[in-house]
Amino acid sequence: MDKFKKITLNRDLDEHLYTQLYNSIKDLIINKDIKAHDKLPPIRKLADLLKVNNITIVKAYSLLETRNYVYKKVGSGTFVAPMENKNHLMELDRLDDEINEDIRLMDRGQIELRENMINFASATPTPELFPVDDFKKVLNEVLDRDKGMAFGYQESKGYFPLREYIVEYLKIYGIGTRTENIQIISGAQQGIDIIAKALLRHGDTVIVESPTYTGAMATFESRGAKMLQVPMLKDGIDLEILEKFIDKYHPKLIYAMPNFQNPTGYSYSMKTKKALLELANRKGIIIIEDDYLTDLDFYTDESVTLKSMDRYENVIYIKSFSKIFMPGLRLGFLIVPISLNNEILIAKQTSDISTSSLIQRSFDLYLRKGIWRKHIAYMNKIYKERFDVMVESLEEYLPEGTTFIKPKGGTNFWIGLMDGFSSKELYSHIVKKDIAFVPGGVFYPIEVDSNYLRLSIADVYPDDIKIGIKRLSQAIADFYQKKNVKVQKKSRYRPIL
Amino acid sequence: MDKFKKITLNRDLDEHLYTQLYNSIKDLIINKDIKAHDKLPPIRKLADLLKVNNITIVKAYSLLETRNYVYKKVGSGTFVAPMENKNHLMELDRLDDEINEDIRLMDRGQIELRENMINFASATPTPELFPVDDFKKVLNEVLDRDKGMAFGYQESKGYFPLREYIVEYLKIYGIGTRTENIQIISGAQQGIDIIAKALLRHGDTVIVESPTYTGAMATFESRGAKMLQVPMLKDGIDLEILEKFIDKYHPKLIYAMPNFQNPTGYSYSMKTKKALLELANRKGIIIIEDDYLTDLDFYTDESVTLKSMDRYENVIYIKSFSKIFMPGLRLGFLIVPISLNNEILIAKQTSDISTSSLIQRSFDLYLRKGIWRKHIAYMNKIYKERFDVMVESLEEYLPEGTTFIKPKGGTNFWIGLMDGFSSKELYSHIVKKDIAFVPGGVFYPIEVDSNYLRLSIADVYPDDIKIGIKRLSQAIADFYQKKNVKVQKKSRYRPIL
Repeated sequence: MDKFKKITLNRDLDEHLYTQLYNSIKDLIINKDIKAHDKLPPIRKLADLLKVNNITIVKAYSLLETRNYVYKKVGSGTFVAPMENKNHLMELDRLDDEINEDIRLMDRGQIELRENMINFASATPTPELFPVDDFKKVLNEVLDRDKGMAFGYQESKGYFPLREYIVEYLKIYGIGTRTENIQIISGAQQGIDIIAKALLRHGDTVIVESPTYTGAMATFESRGAKMLQVPMLKDGIDLEILEKFIDKYHPKLIYAMPNFQNPTGYSYSMKTKKALLELANRKGIIIIEDDYLTDLDFYTDESVTLKSMDRYENVIYIKSFSKIFMPGLRLGFLIVPISLNNEILIAKQTSDISTSSLIQRSFDLYLRKGIWRKHIAYMNKIYKERFDVMVESLEEYLPEGTTFIKPKGGTNFWIGLMDGFSSKELYSHIVKKDIAFVPGGVFYPIEVDSNYLRLSIADVYPDDIKIGIKRLSQAIADFYQKKNVKVQKKSRYRPIL
Repeated sequence: MDKFKKITLNRDLDEHLYTQLYNSIKDLIINKDIKAHDKLPPIRKLADLLKVNNITIVKAYSLLETRNYVYKKVGSGTFVAPMENKNHLMELDRLDDEINEDIRLMDRGQIELRENMINFASATPTPELFPVDDFKKVLNEVLDRDKGMAFGYQESKGYFPLREYIVEYLKIYGIGTRTENIQIISGAQQGIDIIAKALLRHGDTVIVESPTYTGAMATFESRGAKMLQVPMLKDGIDLEILEKFIDKYHPKLIYAMPNFQNPTGYSYSMKTKKALLELANRKGIIIIEDDYLTDLDFYTDESVTLKSMDRYENVIYIKSFSKIFMPGLRLGFLIVPISLNNEILIAKQTSDISTSSLIQRSFDLYLRKGIWRKHIAYMNKIYKERFDVMVESLEEYLPEGTTFIKPKGGTNFWIGLMDGFSSKELYSHIVKKDIAFVPGGVFYPIEVDSNYLRLSIADVYPDDIKIGIKRLSQAIADFYQKKNVKVQKKSRYRPIL
């Protein structure tokens, strides 16, 4: 306990108390002040000693455990882990993990940020934008109307009236389909997961855009699939490389985000869309089209979906309601080619039987009341304003040598630092400047150091966008100056622009 | 179109109009009245012709398609499939599929039943039992309190206050655990799925009870795992066979339902529970304990969970709220040993990122208000009444040679027909008697013909239980009489009683 009395936590620092504590205990372990298999103080005792909440201790111990500094035994406590394997390389990996964990949490708006932090890392809309009052009304209407039925199992394919209305709703997007092709899902991530379950066997190959959405990669990896990356160009996936890969590796699936891609913000041109569909048809490959932001098409007439052009039924379309409505609903849908209907349905059943009946019925009523049109128009207005401020600020402030391609819509911007400068290294510098972003390396199957970074405007107000980009640009300029030497590790899979 | 004019549908029959239509068109195809690649009439035209709703045609065409009698082309219609591969064996398989589909739907209360049908197949509680009004109140309170926050992403591990309260709630069940060990899930099925994702690699071996829950088998199969079945005896899993299998096949997991097992209703004795834990610890194997009905412990003091006795952290505990509260919530939780916390969390993230924030927050408030105690007491009262009537009726009416072991709680009863009599065959006889049950064969990894059947009281009122068991018993007696010859296929994996 004596060793722990020396720990001082500073409430005036920007750093969380629990990460301060984590670092203090980590130092005790690394400096061998406490030894392998020594017991850490009980949570309450240490909390009393340091005059903090129990939860601070719990969080610090958890973090120590995640990083393998300590281990736990139920009923007896927390103990220092033996240090044999902890070499310098592991330490570096651990630092990476730490940053990645922060980023993952920030991406979902799940981390408490410091008061002045401007969060370009979060891809989750600001909660004030959610149509809470409208949804409360439909929830209550549904409960009065359907009573216990709203809490039974819904059929696995989804609530029939909702699927029926979605078919209508899709007409506006130029997509003609039928009720039996609609599969309700508990969010887009589940959509990717059940498609992978239905169609991928261990050892199968999947093509992904490079860079691409991290959640899709995690799912394909979990299925034991091999991933091939095809560069994302400014007008879409590189078709030449794609065709070569198809001929050589016979992939089962292509995972694509043709409009306002995550993380780049780039969109496929009409020409690329047509050519991709033609290629997929010719080679007999299924395309997963992940559509999470097509609605935010500020500066283009070409934001049509692949699905609307899919004459050969080669596209499985995933629609997320998380970004344009509310992520907490955990609701979305698939359009499934008839031939795959049954496999997808079975995969849905083994995943979670069915999506919440109450949520499906309420969202059905929400759609049927037509409120969604108003809401999408509102979201468009809000985001277009942010988008414009963002483009203006980037053009005004970004230091020379720093590049971006202006997207035509959506919420993501893909910024390239000068060649050889690591965005991850910038990240660890910049956190002190109260700016968060996502280093580009995480968007590749094998995490690499990259000179790219993703900025999202989903959770930042216009005024803060301007301040934030100004601050970020200054930090980048400082970073260029300070780091005259180029970083050693170079990006292996840098997107070709 | 001429061929279709001859179809007659009879509204006075018990059979659904759409299955009548399905059968009529199937006959046209089998008798070659319509040929391969012939186009079926458009939905509206046929609906007009037969004077039925469009949906009847849609359902019939879908069923024909599922069974491969027809195929669809988007934009052009539905066509007769070529018949090359349709031999007698496939036809039999198809019949099996048909019955299984019915059963799956009935099990979830997802099929419209004929008016007088008594449904012993459904394991889903009657919707009138759901605490709808109480839940409506907490939903509204949460929306007023948390506003947009109720619709954001919840942290993947689950809403912190809910996890905190669950730790308290578990004390009543003699389970000591901590907030960081609780993982919120979107229902027990997802629990099984994410455990499989986290812990099973392609080719790994899993031990299941024989018979066991169909949803668990589907998940293990989907992960590419091999399943070994260990017979379920009246006092629990056969430990002798289990140990032999462990030594020979080195399984990763044992999937068990120690209290009121599905489908048998049997419970492990305290002796078996202790021995299983000891064995798992000695061999270093993880046990998945699926607890969906422990609360309904009418006639036993021994319905403790394995988890409450798990001193070595070998048990992952799954708690479903579907049967005791409401399935439509899609909510449950895991208790995860600390060492597996991270893998499970990642598997949850790749599955659906997080469980609905609104539902978690509302259920948290529901628990904190203490309403759940009242509700569990109420469910106990209701189900004990049904249970007693069921036992009484079975003892009074079941014909000689038909056996069952009286469970000590829960909602399932496992009935054994006389040796050599197929419960699936009984099923196809009995549907005309307006009784539904689940033939036992589906509860085995390789579906077998079995002389067992599962009866569930979850969705049947006491009066109907009596009438239903009387009717079923008469039908069984008739079946014994009619089928003097024994069935040829014998159950390969019949439980040893």
